[in-house]
Amino acid sequence: MNILVLGGDGFIGSHLVDRVFAPGHNVTVFDRFQDNVSKNLEHLRGKIRFFSGEFADRDQLAKALEKQDVVYHFICATNPASSWDDPLSEIEKNLRNSVRFFELAAACGVKKVVFPSSGGTIYGRQYGSIKEDALPNPFNPYGITKLTTEYFLNYFRERTGMAGDVYRIGNAYGPRQPMERPQGVIAVWMGKILDGQEIQVYGDRETLRDYVYVEDTTFLMTHSTRDTNSSVVYNLGTGRGVSILDLFDIFRTVIDEPFKYKIHPRRTFDNTSVVLDSSKLTSFFPGFKFQRLEDKVRDTWLFVKERHGRRRASLSPNR
Amino acid sequence: MNILVLGGDGFIGSHLVDRVFAPGHNVTVFDRFQDNVSKNLEHLRGKIRFFSGEFADRDQLAKALEKQDVVYHFICATNPASSWDDPLSEIEKNLRNSVRFFELAAACGVKKVVFPSSGGTIYGRQYGSIKEDALPNPFNPYGITKLTTEYFLNYFRERTGMAGDVYRIGNAYGPRQPMERPQGVIAVWMGKILDGQEIQVYGDRETLRDYVYVEDTTFLMTHSTRDTNSSVVYNLGTGRGVSILDLFDIFRTVIDEPFKYKIHPRRTFDNTSVVLDSSKLTSFFPGFKFQRLEDKVRDTWLFVKERHGRRRASLSPNR
Repeated sequence: MNILVLGGDGFIGSHLVDRVFAPGHNVTVFDRFQDNVSKNLEHLRGKIRFFSGEFADRDQLAKALEKQDVVYHFICATNPASSWDDPLSEIEKNLRNSVRFFELAAACGVKKVVFPSSGGTIYGRQYGSIKEDALPNPFNPYGITKLTTEYFLNYFRERTGMAGDVYRIGNAYGPRQPMERPQGVIAVWMGKILDGQEIQVYGDRETLRDYVYVEDTTFLMTHSTRDTNSSVVYNLGTGRGVSILDLFDIFRTVIDEPFKYKIHPRRTFDNTSVVLDSSKLTSFFPGFKFQRLEDKVRDTWLFVKERHGRRRASLSPNR
Repeated sequence: MNILVLGGDGFIGSHLVDRVFAPGHNVTVFDRFQDNVSKNLEHLRGKIRFFSGEFADRDQLAKALEKQDVVYHFICATNPASSWDDPLSEIEKNLRNSVRFFELAAACGVKKVVFPSSGGTIYGRQYGSIKEDALPNPFNPYGITKLTTEYFLNYFRERTGMAGDVYRIGNAYGPRQPMERPQGVIAVWMGKILDGQEIQVYGDRETLRDYVYVEDTTFLMTHSTRDTNSSVVYNLGTGRGVSILDLFDIFRTVIDEPFKYKIHPRRTFDNTSVVLDSSKLTSFFPGFKFQRLEDKVRDTWLFVKERHGRRRASLSPNR
């Protein structure tokens, strides 16, 4: 099977590539490779195809789409925080370009597109564990656009027969998550701690989030390669609700050096609680268990300390 | 109260203007007035304000929005049929411009925006009478964009406090509906009959629609001027399901001249049945009853015959 991963050198995308890289699969990664170097996938050089291109460039995208069976679409130009003050960018950069991509993919004969949606923003204010048939009620442009993109997958299936799977992912975290963007509180906090800066804790004990380890996330997303005809929406979270202060407690246990912090009230564009019932998806993986947050925050911390250390060394004038 | 009606010289817009024109209300109509002539509201000249402008022109729109309390937004560049082959136009012409308008309205201090959504396309395939809390599942770009625009009203309420009411309207029909666009089968058929052309009947006995008379529609939409703080989503249909062949039977009874027709299978972009439960809205209007389709198809036919006749006379070289 030919698999294309758009944004495959990024955080979740690169882990997905690691997961789908297997005998019988030809994997292509479409991303911006600066100086032809992969940020996260150098260990697969010579084993997969690297395609450097711009998502907004129709010709480059069309070339990458040739003869692909399944395309995972991880390219996203925004995040919930940035979109709060700039809804038009959300429409122009994410929604329009994604619909153009779907159109091109259908024309190129792609069998299935896999779209990572946002379990954390599309449902709006909900209570308790959420199933896929809960009434969505997004109020953040990021979540609105994610849900709208899901609907456009419906449309392309109806019009062209191209299948589309959707994963409404909770708060993914783990190695390779960018530490400089205001998305992914675990990565952001770790970045601040490494830089000796104060971490900003927005939240309370009531606002629950569903933190899901990136390797669990991408493992479950390989489900879409089993049947290229299905079009299904899946929640993808652990079902465990963790408040930002609970997470802060975990940091105080796990982080093996002192760090500075400040507690703030929750931000307007934050949702209230999000806890996802993913039984529809996990039922396809008998015996599967989500990894423990405490364990994987520790592993992620060890990873970023090592990578950050290396980066610092490479920046050092003595090297 | 100052009320602005965007697209107020059009089909539903002009009826809304007729309804809200009352002592104590200053009504402004924003539309494209060619040669400063109103298509549908000349009878109100001198009594309301006509503002000729382009919806996409930020400066013109900002000027019209000054000091307005409630704005009804009837401007729509597309229809379900045209959007089926051109999803990007839907995003660029309707969604983006509507979000720009909301942003401007909030900045101008507008208290409430009223948005006519589409009861016929946002729910997707449903069975039986639909309430507002049914899970939406649009698969037509027109319906997707309508629903997305609803979500953006949520966002502006959260971010700016501007209220937004939504009416998910069934198949509105009645006088002033354009006969040349592929939207509004009753008007389209009447136009064909007047021109001596064959009418094209797409459908069967199972695909039910909810035809709602335009004067009933706009009467119920005046509800939004009662409380400028509320933000509510309402269905707006009669609750009576009528198949396209049922409608055809009504035409054969009501139309007082012979006409040509051809029966086709239903079109892909058509939904299956749509019947709307509007009890949430009608409960505010004790004693209100929807007018009968048979009666109002007859009245509409008498109206278009008279107007069409006048138009023909005015085109005559002897006049």
